[in-house]
Amino acid sequence: METPCTVTEASQRILGLRGPAGKERCRLGEAAGRILRQEVVADRDFPPFNRVMLDGLALRHADLVAGCREFTILGAAPAGAAPAKLPEKSGAALEVATGAVLPEGADCILPCEEYEERGSVAVLARDPGIQRGLAIHPQGSDHRAGDVLLRPGQRLGPVEIGIAAACGCAQVEVSAPIRVVVIATGDELAAVEANPREGQIRQTNAIALAAALQMAGHAAVKTFALGDERGSLREGLVAALSGHDVVILTGGVSRGRRDLIPPVLTDLGARLVLHGVAQRPGKPMGVWQMPEGTVVFGLPGNPVSALVCFRRYVPPALGTWSGGAPEPGSRRILRGAFTRPPGLTLFLPVLEAGDGSLKPSPVANSGDFAGLAGTCGFVEIDESFAEGSTVPYFSWCPS
Amino acid sequence: METPCTVTEASQRILGLRGPAGKERCRLGEAAGRILRQEVVADRDFPPFNRVMLDGLALRHADLVAGCREFTILGAAPAGAAPAKLPEKSGAALEVATGAVLPEGADCILPCEEYEERGSVAVLARDPGIQRGLAIHPQGSDHRAGDVLLRPGQRLGPVEIGIAAACGCAQVEVSAPIRVVVIATGDELAAVEANPREGQIRQTNAIALAAALQMAGHAAVKTFALGDERGSLREGLVAALSGHDVVILTGGVSRGRRDLIPPVLTDLGARLVLHGVAQRPGKPMGVWQMPEGTVVFGLPGNPVSALVCFRRYVPPALGTWSGGAPEPGSRRILRGAFTRPPGLTLFLPVLEAGDGSLKPSPVANSGDFAGLAGTCGFVEIDESFAEGSTVPYFSWCPS
Repeated sequence: METPCTVTEASQRILGLRGPAGKERCRLGEAAGRILRQEVVADRDFPPFNRVMLDGLALRHADLVAGCREFTILGAAPAGAAPAKLPEKSGAALEVATGAVLPEGADCILPCEEYEERGSVAVLARDPGIQRGLAIHPQGSDHRAGDVLLRPGQRLGPVEIGIAAACGCAQVEVSAPIRVVVIATGDELAAVEANPREGQIRQTNAIALAAALQMAGHAAVKTFALGDERGSLREGLVAALSGHDVVILTGGVSRGRRDLIPPVLTDLGARLVLHGVAQRPGKPMGVWQMPEGTVVFGLPGNPVSALVCFRRYVPPALGTWSGGAPEPGSRRILRGAFTRPPGLTLFLPVLEAGDGSLKPSPVANSGDFAGLAGTCGFVEIDESFAEGSTVPYFSWCPS
Repeated sequence: METPCTVTEASQRILGLRGPAGKERCRLGEAAGRILRQEVVADRDFPPFNRVMLDGLALRHADLVAGCREFTILGAAPAGAAPAKLPEKSGAALEVATGAVLPEGADCILPCEEYEERGSVAVLARDPGIQRGLAIHPQGSDHRAGDVLLRPGQRLGPVEIGIAAACGCAQVEVSAPIRVVVIATGDELAAVEANPREGQIRQTNAIALAAALQMAGHAAVKTFALGDERGSLREGLVAALSGHDVVILTGGVSRGRRDLIPPVLTDLGARLVLHGVAQRPGKPMGVWQMPEGTVVFGLPGNPVSALVCFRRYVPPALGTWSGGAPEPGSRRILRGAFTRPPGLTLFLPVLEAGDGSLKPSPVANSGDFAGLAGTCGFVEIDESFAEGSTVPYFSWCPS
């Protein structure tokens, strides 16, 4: 048995596997969570005009400096209207609303709290002590037309969607969805809705991993189960491989006689990427690539191992293969005692400690999902771990 | 003008507004991210039988203790099969696979690395030094049939979906979706696909907030825009109120003459929940409840204010109104200098510092989304802030 590779090596081999996925155009309103594959360029200055930031009066600061305390309101410049012009006479003012274009000739906004209206005259009780330029957001002060505001590889969250909208991108070029299928294997597996026979357990892996994928924005992931009989396993795999970019298998991946996934994949011409990783849980994990490019993750059948390995390797890979910029990953402080197995990277389920740090889950890792209830994810601990330092953190629901 | 309420008071008033939303049944495969509204009870012991945890031989520990180093393999107990029985003779063994039922009479598993097979005889080179019970996961050791494994109010992530699957819940009772609409108001707003006239800016709030809602699991949120003309604003609001549980408005919510949202809502019989919060940004924010129960959030029109107020108040409220258990909220350490406005709670956009802590965004808060590019969310800083302590953190994408 070859020496298992390290977690870092496994991650590098996986992330290096394929070029970015294809692109497609998508309506901006449906692009949340997708990976942007184009630049978004400011098509105008931001703000596009000298923008009024308060309700009040637009006037000349020089008039205030000269001691003028009564201003004649000569009209209004509401938001959305074409630019107005402040008449060139002393004490002239235009009523303006937040968001309006600053009238030509005005150079400050007198807030509405600072004056009383008597007919069309605004009367100030005192020197408002305001600066020239008050409450004016100058044209182009955030960005100039032509500035690149978003770059390929950025994930479109609310902020990025807002930026794209401001630039008039009603449609955006994003990565095409990666077609993923999750297949649980094992003769002991009964369907969720079935009454398991003696010796059977219900199949939980495929539906749990599909839920994690769905919450990470991969809609409508197909799931099914296959038994351990070699012929039907091979047949099921061939069918799954043809319609998908990524096949995630759970079970049957160790080096035992009954672990049929590795030999069946080899039979089908798969290239071994890795088999065995120096990690706990999940040591038997394997990854293969088919001649047509489909990547096959062979995860252990133990539900906790399957979920941990999935979370550690699959969402980052899907993000990278979608053309996403490398994500720094989340790090958190871990508090409390645990045992690290020598020579292995430990994935340790954790609870929120309430102060932003994490603590090891007290429940013994029995291998079933019920032991993970209440945990928020896991941390990755290798030889470099030092008390009080931060460690990589993976929440169960990748975002 | 009444004194603005505090952030804590605003949050309490909002969360206290309505009883939980209705329930519905949903297929487990479509329940990711939903709020559970039933108990999930173990319908069998977990594990449901004494479960073999390794590939190897099931045998009697007493035989090993007695010095037996050759075992006769009398058959196999594969995973998924009904329980086998280990014949009652010295040196008897059955081949077992991970996940199999422990054969009756056996009390430990000899790992396959520990012996060599010579025909049907397994030969041990040495005393394997294993304990009684090795690699056996005893029936009911995780949970007993009848144990409550999930409770109403839990959010269904991958772990909870896996637990429900293990208990045979092919369908689960979850909260019915809350019907949300986002409406941007303001005469200065042009459509995303439009070429804005002079004085106009493109509408970015509704699409950005809808993206945040979508990423938090609220699918297919409707969005539209309304102008500042009182009659059409009222008409648009009446239409929106009838089909939705929550209406989110941006713009027109201050106390100025042109801020029509408060008077129009009052005209329509709305009860004021709050108007004005001692926070920056977002001081003008208001919340109302209609006689029929619909809750109206009136957020400021400034895009950054709108997104911050949305994130701080709306997703937690939707979670609570859906019957979700109170969430502790995320806390993180903040490093770096910032200025806190006296008497106000500050919402400060932040960047990941790379070590799990956060740092203030260096970009001046200009009010537009482009200034938020690269930030991951914001922290909430009130008078209790002390250097080095953790502060509440809200990521832009609520999970």
